[in-house]
Amino acid sequence: MGQIHRLVVDILKPHEPPLVEFTQEIDGIEGVDATTSSLIELDQEVQNVKLSIEGEELDLERLEDAVENLGGTVHSVDEVSCGEYIVEDRPTLQD
Amino acid sequence: MGQIHRLVVDILKPHEPPLVEFTQEIDGIEGVDATTSSLIELDQEVQNVKLSIEGEELDLERLEDAVENLGGTVHSVDEVSCGEYIVEDRPTLQD
Amino acid sequence: MGQIHRLVVDILKPHEPPLVEFTQEIDGIEGVDATTSSLIELDQEVQNVKLSIEGEELDLERLEDAVENLGGTVHSVDEVSCGEYIVEDRPTLQD
Amino acid sequence: MGQIHRLVVDILKPHEPPLVEFTQEIDGIEGVDATTSSLIELDQEVQNVKLSIEGEELDLERLEDAVENLGGTVHSVDEVSCGEYIVEDRPTLQD
Amino acid sequence: MGQIHRLVVDILKPHEPPLVEFTQEIDGIEGVDATTSSLIELDQEVQNVKLSIEGEELDLERLEDAVENLGGTVHSVDEVSCGEYIVEDRPTLQD
Amino acid sequence: MGQIHRLVVDILKPHEPPLVEFTQEIDGIEGVDATTSSLIELDQEVQNVKLSIEGEELDLERLEDAVENLGGTVHSVDEVSCGEYIVEDRPTLQD
Amino acid sequence: MGQIHRLVVDILKPHEPPLVEFTQEIDGIEGVDATTSSLIELDQEVQNVKLSIEGEELDLERLEDAVENLGGTVHSVDEVSCGEYIVEDRPTLQD
Repeated sequence: MGQIHRLVVDILKPHEPPLVEFTQEIDGIEGVDATTSSLIELDQEVQNVKLSIEGEELDLERLEDAVENLGGTVHSVDEVSCGEYIVEDRPTLQD
Repeated sequence: MGQIHRLVVDILKPHEPPLVEFTQEIDGIEGVDATTSSLIELDQEVQNVKLSIEGEELDLERLEDAVENLGGTVHSVDEVSCGEYIVEDRPTLQD
Repeated sequence: MGQIHRLVVDILKPHEPPLVEFTQEIDGIEGVDATTSSLIELDQEVQNVKLSIEGEELDLERLEDAVENLGGTVHSVDEVSCGEYIVEDRPTLQD
Repeated sequence: MGQIHRLVVDILKPHEPPLVEFTQEIDGIEGVDATTSSLIELDQEVQNVKLSIEGEELDLERLEDAVENLGGTVHSVDEVSCGEYIVEDRPTLQD
Repeated sequence: MGQIHRLVVDILKPHEPPLVEFTQEIDGIEGVDATTSSLIELDQEVQNVKLSIEGEELDLERLEDAVENLGGTVHSVDEVSCGEYIVEDRPTLQD
Repeated sequence: MGQIHRLVVDILKPHEPPLVEFTQEIDGIEGVDATTSSLIELDQEVQNVKLSIEGEELDLERLEDAVENLGGTVHSVDEVSCGEYIVEDRPTLQD
Repeated sequence: MGQIHRLVVDILKPHEPPLVEFTQEIDGIEGVDATTSSLIELDQEVQNVKLSIEGEELDLERLEDAVENLGGTVHSVDEVSCGEYIVEDRPTLQD
């Protein structure tokens, strides 16, 4: 069963901890090599963030636990790449 | 007869197993080298997912069996590449 | 007279044989090196498919015969590349 | 005076000879190295085609003669590149 | 915990110091290797600027202090990259 | 003072000489290495053409003289690149 | 404090000196390696031009002086890059 090498998830998080500390905590999860967080939108209570993480052996459960320990939730899993390399999603005539 | 090297299919699946486990199961099919799943949309019952898989010798029947064993169905086959290399679909004036 | 190295055709085909087998049959034509089929649209009776094929010495007649043997028809020939290399169609101010 | 290395022309042609043979004939013109024909539109009588040809020493007169011998006409010359290399047309703020 | 290697922030700043001096001051922060400032919009009182900074070990607090010392404020943190390399944010079907 | 290495100009020209001969004449100007002409639009009297020329030491006056000798006029100078290399115009948030 | 390596400014200039001479004068400023001017729009009195300049050690004051000596004004500074290399401004979800 192939290892997960890239995950793109949509999360909701409170304003604290702020995005920088939040991203560093996510990047500190075992198996994660690099992380980019992009702010989608924010209101007074929460931030909606797109999280792209890459690594040799990603684990969604560890990611969800970490997000929850930081007061957030994984709202949806938008892209999952696994196997010997990362297949890029390419536009097709059906998109 | 050329081997299939890339398949892009549109599937419907229940929420369980979730997308990560689902993608790993697909990636575990004989002949599959790498897999990317992209969430198209979801409602309370099902997830609609675009599955891009690559490998030296892909087999749609094995893919359909695996998707069905996971409770889903292959809704449509959107792109098929076979032969000595992968021809990229390029936009033409007729698209 | 230059050999044809890339052909993009628009075909109509019945649902049987399905797109994977259909693409493999096309890829099995003499002179074809690689093939990508992209689903444009489908209804209850037919599938409309964009077929991109490459090879050292493509022959439209052989392609048409093969498509017809599979129950389909070549609806239009959308792009033809021939010569010592493939000239990419580039957008101009007149497109 | 620089040699012409790329020409993009818009042509009108009857359905016969079909696009594949037509393209091969164009590619057979002296000085032409490679040719791509893209179907713009067609009606019952004619096909409107964008022809991109490259070569070391292209000659529009020879191209026009060949198109006319095949029953077509060069409707407009849309892009001409000449000199020591091909300058790509790049978008500017005035396009 | 991974180091921050790229930060994109949205700032509000007064017209003085002007954008060039402002950018040089930001680039002078410890840990910053390179900086690009892009003007989003301006009115009579303030400039709204997108600041992209890269470095081996970025520190948001030092950035905020520097921006405030220059009379501005960090309005939002829009993108944070950390880890062994920079994961590019790629469009998904959910964007 | 830096030499001009790329010029993009918008010209109006009569139908004679046609675009191919016109482009070759422009390419024959001293200092010009390569030229691409793109038809913007045409009416019964004139052709409006975008001319992109590159060379080690371009001279607008020589270009204007040549265009006028061919019966045309330089309508506007849209892009000028000079110096040790060509800086590509990149989109900014102000475009 | 990092050196400025790229500046994109929006300027207003009279028709004289014309864009070619103007660009050459800008390129002649100490510290400038290469310059591209792109015409944004023009009316009877002035030209609005986007100026992209690169160099090892750019100086806005010298640029402003040069623009003013040529009868123009720097209307806005749209992009400033400084540091060890040029960080490209990349689109984010907030643009």
